[in-house]
Amino acid sequence: MLPVQPDRFLADLHNLRRFGAAGVAKGVIRPAFSDADVAAREWLAAQMTEAGLKPRFDAVGNLFGLAKGRGILLGSHSDSQPAGGWLDGAFGVIAALEVARAAQDAGGPPVSVVSFQDEEGRFGATVGSGVWTGAVPLAEADNAVDDAGVTLASARRAMAHLAGDPVPSDRFTGFIEPHIEQGPWLEQAGHAVGVVTTIVGLRQIEVTLDGQQNHAGTTSMALRRDAVQGMVAIASALNARLAEVATERTVWTIGRVVVSPNAGSIVPGRCVFSVQWRDADSARLDRMETIIRDTVAEVAAARGLRLNVGEQPALPPVAMDAHLQDLLARSAEDFAPGRWQRMPSGAVHDAGYVARVLPVAMLFVPSIGGISHDFAEDTDEADLVAGLRVLAGAVARTG
Amino acid sequence: MLPVQPDRFLADLHNLRRFGAAGVAKGVIRPAFSDADVAAREWLAAQMTEAGLKPRFDAVGNLFGLAKGRGILLGSHSDSQPAGGWLDGAFGVIAALEVARAAQDAGGPPVSVVSFQDEEGRFGATVGSGVWTGAVPLAEADNAVDDAGVTLASARRAMAHLAGDPVPSDRFTGFIEPHIEQGPWLEQAGHAVGVVTTIVGLRQIEVTLDGQQNHAGTTSMALRRDAVQGMVAIASALNARLAEVATERTVWTIGRVVVSPNAGSIVPGRCVFSVQWRDADSARLDRMETIIRDTVAEVAAARGLRLNVGEQPALPPVAMDAHLQDLLARSAEDFAPGRWQRMPSGAVHDAGYVARVLPVAMLFVPSIGGISHDFAEDTDEADLVAGLRVLAGAVARTG
Repeated sequence: MLPVQPDRFLADLHNLRRFGAAGVAKGVIRPAFSDADVAAREWLAAQMTEAGLKPRFDAVGNLFGLAKGRGILLGSHSDSQPAGGWLDGAFGVIAALEVARAAQDAGGPPVSVVSFQDEEGRFGATVGSGVWTGAVPLAEADNAVDDAGVTLASARRAMAHLAGDPVPSDRFTGFIEPHIEQGPWLEQAGHAVGVVTTIVGLRQIEVTLDGQQNHAGTTSMALRRDAVQGMVAIASALNARLAEVATERTVWTIGRVVVSPNAGSIVPGRCVFSVQWRDADSARLDRMETIIRDTVAEVAAARGLRLNVGEQPALPPVAMDAHLQDLLARSAEDFAPGRWQRMPSGAVHDAGYVARVLPVAMLFVPSIGGISHDFAEDTDEADLVAGLRVLAGAVARTG
Repeated sequence: MLPVQPDRFLADLHNLRRFGAAGVAKGVIRPAFSDADVAAREWLAAQMTEAGLKPRFDAVGNLFGLAKGRGILLGSHSDSQPAGGWLDGAFGVIAALEVARAAQDAGGPPVSVVSFQDEEGRFGATVGSGVWTGAVPLAEADNAVDDAGVTLASARRAMAHLAGDPVPSDRFTGFIEPHIEQGPWLEQAGHAVGVVTTIVGLRQIEVTLDGQQNHAGTTSMALRRDAVQGMVAIASALNARLAEVATERTVWTIGRVVVSPNAGSIVPGRCVFSVQWRDADSARLDRMETIIRDTVAEVAAARGLRLNVGEQPALPPVAMDAHLQDLLARSAEDFAPGRWQRMPSGAVHDAGYVARVLPVAMLFVPSIGGISHDFAEDTDEADLVAGLRVLAGAVARTG
């Protein structure tokens, strides 16, 4: 058993929270490459050194704490949403640090730590792990711009003085990412720990409906080609049709809606909206895609709306490595007997990209009220410690 | 019969179009107090002088061309939408000018002309007629700001050198506003002229639904409190319920939708949207309001969404004066026999405010394709001339 120290672990979680503390609940404001993010990474590098790990930044800002010798890699990310919680990413990084410290104290196995850069999507989601695994060429990622029009190429200059050599993935035997669930399932089940089976796949389209902008007083209902009403009809039809193929974990979301010209007295000429859907099963994602594309086309044609469907990058479901899952499951049975479950991850994580180059697994702890990406995000500290112990137990079994 | 000259009338319509010509179709860009608008008003004042009328600007920028003696007032507005058509307002002003000229040529009756300021709503709709009739105190209107943050008080300085004494309404016996229909009804019926019975009433609310912003991957459909889906449910229910009380001319519009945080991967926490409804009958407006308020409250409660309903100023239906309507109808039967109809106005017009101080009537000519508030706005010149003749015939009967 690795001698993890829960007090040291919790103290460092709170230490990390000071970087970009929002002053509202336990919230943090630590987006990638912000002053707070860079300072937090420099602090993390110092903790790694103190733990006997060799800190190494790569060109995109990922921070590795390298143990001597080939072994497991643990971690997540330390950047946050623009208005984020204290645990999203941070829990995984500090739990990794504590397990690595304990392994150093115990004389092995070799445990390395990572904090990937820009998981939260200032320049597109999971940028750091995408670049590290070669899925996204750095030259291509460099062209991405944030909401303020800043390119990644420009933003990462804030860390250029830290950048060292690339870290080859073959020095690691696998990757385990501990993370908060960010959903309601563990809390509802009364469980302390979840062993992830699959990261669900995600697909998204952007629908543009063009009707006829017109006067809202003089244009009869019968003659209108109202783009907002087209969106309403599509959303209603999708709710009915997708429910027929959905499991209780299948989700679909219209999260973005932009109306033009967007005035109370004008029949809307244009409505642009996103439709995103997620499921652990590629075949179900296919069935949903057929329903969504058919429904959008059918409603647009029936209402005389011009239709454009913009493609967004799709993420296929990613299965977790069976052996690493089993190590986590056996450790969960040791440290949280009867209080753990296997479950898919509804959210995208760095582990999804890392699975391209290493066997990966993920470990979840509950999110109170299922709340995340919000200052109010929180987890019972007893559950955080349970997650730490389960992780340490699984790592001990890899040695 | 007043000796109107169609060629002179059409030439001046095209002359007015040069002020702020968009260079796209016959479109104009002549919003209130813009250089183009002020120049157009100075040109109009010169035409009034030439016609034997005395031009007079008031403090808010309305331009009157005053005939000697008490008599009918004709006109509309010469400001345009930011991207507007050449006839919206302009047709009524130039038709009024031509009839006034013909009356001067004929030795009577006294016909005065007006171009109200800011009908199109740079500072809120029908500002000039609202101020002239005392419905809106100038000091209050002065606080209104346009989309660029400019106040009316500041904008009207562009015309301060022109402002003269107020024009008392009791020097007029009534007001007739010729206007393009801005809707499809006359064209569909094959009619050249419409005699307006009522300007429909308008009510609007702004609905704010607050749900729970959350992660679009991890939040199950069953647990979501999705503000966009609340709007979709309300819009769908209103389409079904309002159809039960609507006539073919009743309209309702969700023209403005603002979603927050408005990202594809976030369950929307907030949706703000307008609901506007119009009808010629106050009792029907009441029934619609009950349905709308009940539906909004019912859907919000059922979905756990916090509801706020913001009030917008309501405009009651305005009946046109029966005597003036009859003069127009008899003239229409003379100059467009079998090719005219009585009809409500679905749009708001200056005549709505003027009805507070004078008997008013309105005369419509067709809009090709029902299109208005668009560079493509147009009317067959034969219909413009028919409208001119019907107006002149009605005015001759007032003498």
